[in-house]
Amino acid sequence: MTKIAICAPATPITREHADALREMVAAEFPQTQVTFHDQCFVREGHFAGSDLTRLTALLECANDPAFDAVWFAKGGYGSNRIAEAAMARMNAAARAKTYVGFSDCGYLLAALYRAGIGQCAHGSMPVSARSANGRKAVRRVLQWLNGDNTGLEPSLDGATPAVAFNLITLAMLSNTPMMPDLSGHVVMVEEVSEHLYAIDRLFFHLSGSLPRIAGLRLGSVTDIPENYVEFGQSEEDIARFWCERAGVPYLGRAEIGHTSANRVVPFGLASPPAAS
Amino acid sequence: MTKIAICAPATPITREHADALREMVAAEFPQTQVTFHDQCFVREGHFAGSDLTRLTALLECANDPAFDAVWFAKGGYGSNRIAEAAMARMNAAARAKTYVGFSDCGYLLAALYRAGIGQCAHGSMPVSARSANGRKAVRRVLQWLNGDNTGLEPSLDGATPAVAFNLITLAMLSNTPMMPDLSGHVVMVEEVSEHLYAIDRLFFHLSGSLPRIAGLRLGSVTDIPENYVEFGQSEEDIARFWCERAGVPYLGRAEIGHTSANRVVPFGLASPPAAS
Repeated sequence: MTKIAICAPATPITREHADALREMVAAEFPQTQVTFHDQCFVREGHFAGSDLTRLTALLECANDPAFDAVWFAKGGYGSNRIAEAAMARMNAAARAKTYVGFSDCGYLLAALYRAGIGQCAHGSMPVSARSANGRKAVRRVLQWLNGDNTGLEPSLDGATPAVAFNLITLAMLSNTPMMPDLSGHVVMVEEVSEHLYAIDRLFFHLSGSLPRIAGLRLGSVTDIPENYVEFGQSEEDIARFWCERAGVPYLGRAEIGHTSANRVVPFGLASPPAAS
Repeated sequence: MTKIAICAPATPITREHADALREMVAAEFPQTQVTFHDQCFVREGHFAGSDLTRLTALLECANDPAFDAVWFAKGGYGSNRIAEAAMARMNAAARAKTYVGFSDCGYLLAALYRAGIGQCAHGSMPVSARSANGRKAVRRVLQWLNGDNTGLEPSLDGATPAVAFNLITLAMLSNTPMMPDLSGHVVMVEEVSEHLYAIDRLFFHLSGSLPRIAGLRLGSVTDIPENYVEFGQSEEDIARFWCERAGVPYLGRAEIGHTSANRVVPFGLASPPAAS
């Protein structure tokens, strides 16, 4: 039995999202148990509760030895505000867990990875369980948590450590106390709903912060808003330009992003979590 | 006679913008001469010409001893891509000049200030000369360039060094080779067309980079896009929160921003430029 605790470090989900995931798990993964912390449904302005409410729920999930994994319910924005405090209060049970999420929840994955707490993975989140397409991505996470690696990002070679981040999340993480040392890593980045000029600007900002990575892979860049003028370069042109300027190998595309094709990227060396 | 060279390190303006500024200068500032570099009107995708085209025009303006000041025509995005190379190629004439702009052109102001080249100032740009409201802000720059300080930001006390930046520009500058040491400075920030959650995220990113500033002032935050949910905090709540968290004094509002109320903020200690 794989026991997964679900909390919402950024923005809330609804009871309908939770029901959709529970139904999917019951139908397809009977050996898995998902437990939604009530904090997932709290609403306080933009966030799923105050910083303290979100921090407390995260710690209750992480520090409870009854769970094998913590799955972040949804991104949006807000996990950055509690990540440092969470790391300082995690116990031995937290260090034995697997943590899965992406997008805004990358702040937590980064902080956990830096602190050497548990096994982090970039992967889709419970919020996506309400649509058939979303369930394709959610299914890969549940498979991986049950020892089935078919949903891993295909470029992972098991020899070079890897991480995956939303581009703006990684840019905002850089040079903060949450930023892990990514020397020698393949860094995969994806983005959604940002103008191409903003993507260029984010690569500019990051290019000085990642000089010693093994290489960069570009995931999906989706829902780019229309601007008053064509930028004149594609997202891949932009990634190549900044990699060349920074002396970082550009390794091609990655199958990650805000789409149903989003794959699982375990941080560090790709491996299934310990079976429970 | 104050001689001003105008180039476009980011995005282009039109001949109509140039005509509007020329008419205003002829009518109100007969002792001032404005010279538009032809590069101001070049269009190449998003930018006012390629990086090399924009860099060359900037250097032709800055390095020419015939001019007293360089005024950036418009922001938008792009001056970050040429700022480092420009600094490396500036001559003695460039070091004797005044440089004015804001928004995206803050990358250049920062790089110049860090390199100790000339006198930088945050101020409105020629692109605003086509509307009566825009001319109010443009007028303050022309007054200041002619030794009249009535358009200076009113909190400037002549004793504490100050700078002013667009918030995302400052966040993207942080920890790059262009970032000046702002220890002891009053830092004013303004923003336009960004969600409140994005503003919170930018303050998060900056809060670790500005620990030793004298204090922060918040300029206008305008054209905030509507989000699917109210953020729950105002822009001033956000600024206060991150200042408190970082141990930085919050000093109140500043009269800067993407509005006709935008005032002039000379970088460093407020003073009029040397009379010509």
